[in-house]
Amino acid sequence: MKRRLGFIGLGVMGAPMAAHLMDAGHELYVYNRTRVKADALLAGGAHWCTSPAQVAAHSDIVFTIVGYPKDVEEVYLGGDGIVSSIRSGSIAVDMTTTRPALMKTIASALSSRGAAFADAPVSGGDRGAREATLTFMVGSDEKTFEEIRPYLALMGASINHCGEVSMGQQTKMCNQIVIAGTMAGVSEALVYAARCGLDLESMIRTIRPGAAGCWTLDNLAPRVMRGDWEPGFMVDHFIKDMGLALEEAERMQLCLPSLALVKQLYTAIQAQGLGRKGTQSLVLALQSITGDRLFSLPGKEA
Amino acid sequence: MKRRLGFIGLGVMGAPMAAHLMDAGHELYVYNRTRVKADALLAGGAHWCTSPAQVAAHSDIVFTIVGYPKDVEEVYLGGDGIVSSIRSGSIAVDMTTTRPALMKTIASALSSRGAAFADAPVSGGDRGAREATLTFMVGSDEKTFEEIRPYLALMGASINHCGEVSMGQQTKMCNQIVIAGTMAGVSEALVYAARCGLDLESMIRTIRPGAAGCWTLDNLAPRVMRGDWEPGFMVDHFIKDMGLALEEAERMQLCLPSLALVKQLYTAIQAQGLGRKGTQSLVLALQSITGDRLFSLPGKEA
Repeated sequence: MKRRLGFIGLGVMGAPMAAHLMDAGHELYVYNRTRVKADALLAGGAHWCTSPAQVAAHSDIVFTIVGYPKDVEEVYLGGDGIVSSIRSGSIAVDMTTTRPALMKTIASALSSRGAAFADAPVSGGDRGAREATLTFMVGSDEKTFEEIRPYLALMGASINHCGEVSMGQQTKMCNQIVIAGTMAGVSEALVYAARCGLDLESMIRTIRPGAAGCWTLDNLAPRVMRGDWEPGFMVDHFIKDMGLALEEAERMQLCLPSLALVKQLYTAIQAQGLGRKGTQSLVLALQSITGDRLFSLPGKEA
Repeated sequence: MKRRLGFIGLGVMGAPMAAHLMDAGHELYVYNRTRVKADALLAGGAHWCTSPAQVAAHSDIVFTIVGYPKDVEEVYLGGDGIVSSIRSGSIAVDMTTTRPALMKTIASALSSRGAAFADAPVSGGDRGAREATLTFMVGSDEKTFEEIRPYLALMGASINHCGEVSMGQQTKMCNQIVIAGTMAGVSEALVYAARCGLDLESMIRTIRPGAAGCWTLDNLAPRVMRGDWEPGFMVDHFIKDMGLALEEAERMQLCLPSLALVKQLYTAIQAQGLGRKGTQSLVLALQSITGDRLFSLPGKEA
């Protein structure tokens, strides 16, 4: 069944995700703070709306993927927000990685208008968005999950129901917490290996099949070795996500010392003006502590 | 060619490793601090020696795998040590995970006797030792590596030449540094997930195919979930290894803040009397900070 779908947030993730929905033949109503980013979609037949409220008024299901928690709040709960105009029986799906507690606030506001909500943050990055291979982590009731699943499947390859509203975000937080640990371990090992004169490639080949094996060692260590600091996932965004996890941990009165430390190290990278580089830049923070030049800085020769 | 091989250190790793050498038909000369641990090998035809010196006097190649750096020092450099009696043209191979700098000292002492040396620490644990699937990380000159390789291949499945003497140990240090990071990330994610009420199994299934994927998540998280704290790798040994890496880092004037933190957390586990449990016990240290009982303690019901 062809549906009227809304899409708010047409950034590096949102734009290709919205295109997948439209390519499947659904009628698409879009809004973005910067209109020019909608041009390609509008040329393809999407309808421009002047506010999130207008998108919601036209749509059976509204998808959102924006930036910081304040952006999510504005898009849902602001004067021109989704909640102000959503029709009873509609569904809103927030795919931003954001504050778990905010998801419950929004679900409750939508519920009082007769609308359902799911949080559905993703992993897989802009490449996953372009290739429709994202992993979705969904928090919602069962019925809502079954209703939105076919649309998520147009944008991703792995659609997971993680529990009630907010549990999608909580699963994403777990994902980021694990990554913080593996990034620290791999980065410190690379700095150690470079300093003591090991051949890095041979070191990685030797340890990767065993208990040290991880995605980060396989995918980011090679980038470090060739001095490629371009983002798969951006430092600024990772700091945002670690901040959300630490804020939520503090709310739960939970102590995550390793995550807190790794966030501090990433803050050092940001301070060096490298916030828009990839998370593999952690080695640059580590080497700068000791004044090392083991790995070449962005934009300079090795 | 059948050779006369020496083997010193018949613990949970050494005993099965020595057996593999004997099973291949080599004549075996053994020594261990506690003689009873040699009984099975002696029954199979191995020759008992009363000191490391005596082992070395009989052997073309001597293998050692003991405990702390002081044990390695004693076995090689002590009054009754290997260096005191090794024959010119022989080779000694230390498979203990130990201080990298000590390897150079020993190599130099052996060299003055006309003997060669390789450091060859392993990963893969006691299961790898029993099944001869260990990974060897070898530091030595090329010629020595080629001479010992066939014997290492009787005990392991992956034999890697990592560089000159000490580089085997340095590679093993990198292995342990990566593991410290992944253990921290996975453990903090598990505590976080349990506290916020996520289904742990579903959380792991969701995040494991992506950037959070790692051996620790696949192999140790399931143990945590079923309250199995028995060692794959023991907390006491991991603390020893992290201490060696930090000591070497300090010698190199290198700063590894994440490794230092993780070692502190493991020290808390040791303080709780759980030093002989497995490294997955890190979650127990984390939950104890906040007085949580998310995961059942060893020997108690869930």
